[in-house]
Amino acid sequence: MEKKTESKAAPEEEEQVQVVNPWEVSSAKGKIDYDKLIDQFGCQRLDQSFVDRVFRLTSRSPHIFLRRNVFFAHRDFNEILDAYERGEKFYLYTGRGPSSEALHLGHLVPFMFTKYLQDAFKVPLVIQLTDDEKCMWKNLTVEESKRLARENAKDIIACGFDVSRTFIFSDFDYVGGAFYENMVRVAKCVTYNKVVGIFGFTGEDHIGKVSFPPVQAVPSFPSSFPHLFSGNDKLRCLIPCAIDQDPYFRMTRDVAPRLGYNKPALIESLFFPALQGETGKMSASDPNSAIYVTDSQKAIKDKVNRYAFSGGQDSIENHRKYGANLEVDIPFKYLSFFLEDDEELEHIRKEYGSGRMLTGEIKKRLIDVLTELVERHRAARAAVTDEMVDAFMAVRPLPNMFN
Amino acid sequence: MEKKTESKAAPEEEEQVQVVNPWEVSSAKGKIDYDKLIDQFGCQRLDQSFVDRVFRLTSRSPHIFLRRNVFFAHRDFNEILDAYERGEKFYLYTGRGPSSEALHLGHLVPFMFTKYLQDAFKVPLVIQLTDDEKCMWKNLTVEESKRLARENAKDIIACGFDVSRTFIFSDFDYVGGAFYENMVRVAKCVTYNKVVGIFGFTGEDHIGKVSFPPVQAVPSFPSSFPHLFSGNDKLRCLIPCAIDQDPYFRMTRDVAPRLGYNKPALIESLFFPALQGETGKMSASDPNSAIYVTDSQKAIKDKVNRYAFSGGQDSIENHRKYGANLEVDIPFKYLSFFLEDDEELEHIRKEYGSGRMLTGEIKKRLIDVLTELVERHRAARAAVTDEMVDAFMAVRPLPNMFN
Repeated sequence: MEKKTESKAAPEEEEQVQVVNPWEVSSAKGKIDYDKLIDQFGCQRLDQSFVDRVFRLTSRSPHIFLRRNVFFAHRDFNEILDAYERGEKFYLYTGRGPSSEALHLGHLVPFMFTKYLQDAFKVPLVIQLTDDEKCMWKNLTVEESKRLARENAKDIIACGFDVSRTFIFSDFDYVGGAFYENMVRVAKCVTYNKVVGIFGFTGEDHIGKVSFPPVQAVPSFPSSFPHLFSGNDKLRCLIPCAIDQDPYFRMTRDVAPRLGYNKPALIESLFFPALQGETGKMSASDPNSAIYVTDSQKAIKDKVNRYAFSGGQDSIENHRKYGANLEVDIPFKYLSFFLEDDEELEHIRKEYGSGRMLTGEIKKRLIDVLTELVERHRAARAAVTDEMVDAFMAVRPLPNMFN
Repeated sequence: MEKKTESKAAPEEEEQVQVVNPWEVSSAKGKIDYDKLIDQFGCQRLDQSFVDRVFRLTSRSPHIFLRRNVFFAHRDFNEILDAYERGEKFYLYTGRGPSSEALHLGHLVPFMFTKYLQDAFKVPLVIQLTDDEKCMWKNLTVEESKRLARENAKDIIACGFDVSRTFIFSDFDYVGGAFYENMVRVAKCVTYNKVVGIFGFTGEDHIGKVSFPPVQAVPSFPSSFPHLFSGNDKLRCLIPCAIDQDPYFRMTRDVAPRLGYNKPALIESLFFPALQGETGKMSASDPNSAIYVTDSQKAIKDKVNRYAFSGGQDSIENHRKYGANLEVDIPFKYLSFFLEDDEELEHIRKEYGSGRMLTGEIKKRLIDVLTELVERHRAARAAVTDEMVDAFMAVRPLPNMFN
């Protein structure tokens, strides 16, 4: 469940300046045009009315990622809210492809937001660790993929999920039974040409790639979790994810009604930018492209100071005169993801944008914010025991998951 | 694990007069040229020296299907026998695609032979019921495929397998864990182009078809059965099957060494001919094309008398003069599968072939043989309880499987 670069994407439109699929995010223009992406994918923009409505329905301050439009697009989120308003329940589904030991900040975004949704709506959550996918795409051994899945589960648990409402599973552990039955049902509904159109596989790709989309599809159907949702086949599913995962769920939504299920709803985020700027890519092979949750305070300081792409001007004089270009400034973008205080962010926008605040100042503020975030995560992760991982990953009923 | 007709086979050779793959068996010439098939597939003929060697190694009369060359081809069967002679163990793997309620005689052939192998070599056996495959190819529901798997398991158990050495599993029940891990390992090693070359899938085929070959491949690897063969990854596997299954295991043998396993060995049978003759096809949609294990004595008599293609001449005079054409005579072919007495068969060959015996006489003998076979099967199947099915299908160790 994250973007990678091994596989080529098939053009779904004739003139395609940007490619976004689960394995590649790139744009000939350098920067992703999210408006165009919404058109291309056929999802909807998540406008302010949704933020207001979530506030009203949950009686909680909307999450920073909602307020700041980090989650900026959706499919049928309105239907989830309609149902919730009628007193109907739903469940959340998100996931991660465990390809690396340490997570970076971008990896935390969907989990931080999902935790908020779980708390705000009081709903159950399933988290899929696609160790099978990573084994196939990253050429990891089965054993290494499974080990990484468990390590990543600790980082996920550290985000604060409620064990009484959360089931974390690894595909290698959990595929089988009702889950496999649904995989077969989905696979029957999707032609090879269709997956080529959606995912851009070629004849030289291995068949594991062709087999995988149903694996990521079926957690969208409640019957894949008989220990949780038995007899509740019409339960709606909401999927918080980055928008590069949309292709999986376009396919899933196409199939769902044919199998008698509701289409899963989606709430989709922007990509978290690399330190080098939005045209760069966070890459596991370049540790300086991202802040990792394992980075020391010193590493965070060095990375931000040395690598965070600045929209500030090349001289203090010019900076004072023209102000920073906030459209490309990474410290400002990172702060808009993680600085909770709306007023302070607005202040920085004005001061930095007008040139009264200097790059060094905003970077210093960002270093403080990230250090605190990473320290908090590190402490929480250190407290996650193997027993807690076992507890989250146990195939068990969750009797209080809707309370 | 049986031949079907929905899917087109890709030509693997330029001039292809016959098509044999798991879903289609046809020949422009009408009759399958088995010698050509051996060349085409690259397997070996099972000659008399194997029959003699099996006799010597097992101190048992070789099975009728060995003596009569029903099992006529192999891959590495010599290595299995070499290993057995050195005191090494192996296991048997066969299977069935549960697409119909009642089995016909052709379906019994691999199971009758596998039972003999199990008894003669005293080895464990795994039997795969590919209910997932049938769900996808025959457009059955998951539930119906699973029901048929269990019904077919009863017919299989009725063949007399030893529960202390036999594990029967349905894919819908058993796929997962170590089995799924091996599916992923296999899938990583096989490109889409490769499966198209082997199985002839097209872009309009659903992806379930592309996903399936690893499911049939991995029972060839002992690690797919940790409850049976844990720590015994080098255990050899021998697969008795009809030769139309060879494509699956060509693929499997290609992959096995890359995963650190022995290539599975194969012992492969002719196709059991339709009543209408070898150019006909036994078809589930034409109940008169085959003798079913549920057929009454009267039905057997009627079918043989009315439909069994005769190589006898069109008048008694001509028959006495030219004799029967045994090459095309179905009663004689059926007797060569099921009439145990070698001397009697030889007698019939001479008498009927020379015209001294008439078609009515050989049909009468066949009716007796088949009626006895079917009655015996029916009685054995009636004695199979649900508890016995559960016992064979329980995921359990088999502590005495090699004794």
